Amino acid sequence: MAIDTAFTELSSFLGDRISRSKPVLDQHGGSETHFAPAPPDIVVWPKDTSEISRILRICNQAGIPVIPFGAGTSLEGHTSATKGGVCLDMARMNRVLSHDPGDMIARVEAGLTREELNHELRAVGVFFPVDPGANATLGGMAATRASGTTTVRYGSMRQNVLGLTVVLADGRVIRTGSQAPKSSSGYDLTALFLGSEGTLGIITELTLRLHGQPEEIRAGICAFPDMASAVGAVQQVIQMGLSIARIEFVDDATARAFNQYAGTEMAECPHLLVEFHGSPVAVSEANTLFDEISQDFGATGYEHATKTEDRNALWKIRHHAFYAVQSLRPGAHALVTDICVPISKLADAVEETRDDIEASILPGPILGHVGDGNFHAILLIDPESPEELAVAKDLAERMSRRALALGGTITGEHGIGMGKLHLMAEEHGDGWAVMGDIKSALDPRNILNPGKLVPQGT
Amino acid sequence: MAIDTAFTELSSFLGDRISRSKPVLDQHGGSETHFAPAPPDIVVWPKDTSEISRILRICNQAGIPVIPFGAGTSLEGHTSATKGGVCLDMARMNRVLSHDPGDMIARVEAGLTREELNHELRAVGVFFPVDPGANATLGGMAATRASGTTTVRYGSMRQNVLGLTVVLADGRVIRTGSQAPKSSSGYDLTALFLGSEGTLGIITELTLRLHGQPEEIRAGICAFPDMASAVGAVQQVIQMGLSIARIEFVDDATARAFNQYAGTEMAECPHLLVEFHGSPVAVSEANTLFDEISQDFGATGYEHATKTEDRNALWKIRHHAFYAVQSLRPGAHALVTDICVPISKLADAVEETRDDIEASILPGPILGHVGDGNFHAILLIDPESPEELAVAKDLAERMSRRALALGGTITGEHGIGMGKLHLMAEEHGDGWAVMGDIKSALDPRNILNPGKLVPQGT
Ligand SMILES: Cc1cc2nc3c(=O)[nH]c(=O)nc-3n(C[C@H](O)[C@H](O)[C@H](O)COP(=O)(O)OP(=O)(O)OC[C@H]3O[C@@H](n4cnc5c(N)ncnc54)[C@H](O)[C@@H]3O)c2cc1C
Ligand SMILES: Cc1cc2nc3c(=O)[nH]c(=O)nc-3n(C[C@H](O)[C@H](O)[C@H](O)COP(=O)(O)OP(=O)(O)OC[C@H]3O[C@@H](n4cnc5c(N)ncnc54)[C@H](O)[C@@H]3O)c2cc1C
Repeated sequence: MAIDTAFTELSSFLGDRISRSKPVLDQHGGSETHFAPAPPDIVVWPKDTSEISRILRICNQAGIPVIPFGAGTSLEGHTSATKGGVCLDMARMNRVLSHDPGDMIARVEAGLTREELNHELRAVGVFFPVDPGANATLGGMAATRASGTTTVRYGSMRQNVLGLTVVLADGRVIRTGSQAPKSSSGYDLTALFLGSEGTLGIITELTLRLHGQPEEIRAGICAFPDMASAVGAVQQVIQMGLSIARIEFVDDATARAFNQYAGTEMAECPHLLVEFHGSPVAVSEANTLFDEISQDFGATGYEHATKTEDRNALWKIRHHAFYAVQSLRPGAHALVTDICVPISKLADAVEETRDDIEASILPGPILGHVGDGNFHAILLIDPESPEELAVAKDLAERMSRRALALGGTITGEHGIGMGKLHLMAEEHGDGWAVMGDIKSALDPRNILNPGKLVPQGT
Repeated sequence: MAIDTAFTELSSFLGDRISRSKPVLDQHGGSETHFAPAPPDIVVWPKDTSEISRILRICNQAGIPVIPFGAGTSLEGHTSATKGGVCLDMARMNRVLSHDPGDMIARVEAGLTREELNHELRAVGVFFPVDPGANATLGGMAATRASGTTTVRYGSMRQNVLGLTVVLADGRVIRTGSQAPKSSSGYDLTALFLGSEGTLGIITELTLRLHGQPEEIRAGICAFPDMASAVGAVQQVIQMGLSIARIEFVDDATARAFNQYAGTEMAECPHLLVEFHGSPVAVSEANTLFDEISQDFGATGYEHATKTEDRNALWKIRHHAFYAVQSLRPGAHALVTDICVPISKLADAVEETRDDIEASILPGPILGHVGDGNFHAILLIDPESPEELAVAKDLAERMSRRALALGGTITGEHGIGMGKLHLMAEEHGDGWAVMGDIKSALDPRNILNPGKLVPQGT
């Protein structure tokens, strides 16, 4: 069998960095989400670009699927090995190759996590801003075009990746972008690989844009009488162009979940969490303005803090929200929705979604990066109940269609994977066919993460 | 002949918006630059997307080249009809379709110029920031991934285009992106068409990101004893993360040219021109800091202004620089170079370039968007002298190689066209072949602006 031959061939140079043991395979094909487990046939842990090039040459020749695997935190079945094949676990490629605070850039290997990177950068007064809640790898974040709480100020992976080293399906290695801040040199291959979900090439190294630690950071939280007021305040803040580094929404159900999870005594109503970065003058100016705007929308009890430990305590609410919500229904699987709309449509999108969930049988707290028009409902479903899964899928689908109707997108940051394939034609029309044409041109044997993102050939 | 048949067919629905008259053809195939004129066979002025779709269907069927044409201000032979064909002049598609200050976005037709757009937006307190010196069309700016003086603060076209309507080679129409601020929905087709120089599709409409008019704007200028000090100050300003909206460099030769051109009495030494946008407090804070930094680097005579007419007078120096420099040598052609390097390498790049030009026979004032590490030398050549052209090309090539050696790119904003084709393999390696594969996938008959950007097949 092709896979046995490949195993022998790969073993010859990977030593103990290859495995076919069932627990390892399961761990790489499983999922905390609602997708059925689909383990690969082999897992490998490459240690550098040239090894990956060699692996791809072998797999391409033999027509064996290759599924890159970062931290496995993606939410749409992205790393499922639905056609078997070789899972490329990037964990051993986790070095910071260089960082140059003079140019505010760092070169890193794709298996490095963002927390590891920021840990290493702390000493030199710079940081990498993109933070999906999970401790994802930078390669995985690039591959899903991830964003996070600070995107409203610093941008997503799209704005913070200057260049990539990529191994193509046939094993060729290319370097995209440069270390210069901008370029008009040909097609933007960096942007093409960002968000390509492992279907066009394996990202092995990244050149990242860093940012200086702000002179002052102030975080704050306030409670709103209802969802409409909180979202109204967000719209106002964004439309005024207030300089804000984070503005996050959690609804009453999320606040309730957090109280239960962490033993806190938050008011069980919708909240906004904010953060300001800059000079003390600028921060205090923005902070005052935010306080005024939120009061105009009925907010009460605005608390704010500049000390690191106080800020961290405050952000715990947001960073633990996912786990807090999950703990509302122990043993449940989560279907996490993810739409993004123009800011003027945020109130419509959030409220229609809330009404739709409330009319259903499922719990589904809402929270999100509202400064970007992006929010999630975390639908909790009994893993044994196909009915609940069907209800959740219907809710999610209606959310996506609502986003499209409002001029938005079916995914703000999580990506397509398998979970949103069926909505791609609705969002992109013939543009989806163009994506398929690009895929065929770059990966003619369809070995790279097959079954994801692009139209599935016949 | 195919072209005659096409002319008849196109005339049937374009009425008087089609021409074969020699002056019209010459005007669309000529150039103020050093490239030999190469007029198309036909010029058409389509009025909407569906007409362009119809034109492309006809040309694709017949294998006739189609060259999109905005304002014709590009500098690398981009719009040369080296293989004849149909020039698609976008001038009649110049409407603002909608603008929504609530979402800070505008939808426009691709033939609209940035000045027309900003004229229309002024009344509502918002603006579109990207400004190449020339009054280019927004379609042309998208197609070259243009940037300008404000890119250091607001980004280039890459950061300010949310979505596009594109007609593909075979006439299909796609819409890329959405009106939401971000998305992870599949390959980033918007980014792929940005910078594609008319080789992948015709951009007919754009969704643009707008910005609020800053509460206060302050512009300033100061003189430096030498180039090294001016560039040193820029590096310091950028590395400190000072919030600056513009920071432009002109060398002593440019100052001299401007004095001659405009009858002013600037000190004939290197200058920085800057601008700050924000709240009065923030602007004054940044202004003071800049003044201090520049003095540390030996700057003198810092003048600054907030009134519109004073600021405009000041920016005239930068905006007329190209024409002032050209007037140094009446009748000369300009070869405008355009490299971009990491900010830490700016001093090396600028000084080596200056030395190289000074050792040559040509005048070549240097100026640029130094906050992005981007600068130009304007090499003035006698159009009758092949020797001078050869010297200029050698200088330009050495600049490009210097940029690559310093981790930069051969073009910060002007693009590839024909002029930099021969350097693409050096910058991109196999990445250039990947660009060719994408081109073949999307335009298999190679009708879209042939001879530009991608590897030229055999
Ligand atoms: C609690 C929680 C909160 C989250 N919050 C956010 C959020 O705020 N914002 C956000 O954007 N996402 C969020 N996510 C989703 C997830 O964290 C992101 O999608 C993340 O970017 C995935 O990174 P990863 O390293 O886990 O990648 P994986 O899940 O391992 O892989 C993701 C995809 O990228 C591909 N891939 C991985 N590495 C490479 C590589 N080196 N080269 C090519 N392809 C590769 C994989 O094949 C797969 O298709 C959240 C997830 C959880 C569980
Ligand atoms: C004095 C001067 C100063 C300049 N300064 C700058 C600067 O600061 N920054 C900068 O970026 N550039 C600068 N340029 C270069 C030029 O202005 C830019 O490249 C500009 O973006 C070109 O726009 P245009 O409308 O003139 O396009 P054109 O020159 O008409 O076309 C440019 C390219 O885009 C293609 N194209 C045009 N319209 C479309 C469309 N609708 N769909 C698809 N493809 C299309 C063309 O085929 C061609 O390949 C300068 C030029 C001059 C003369």
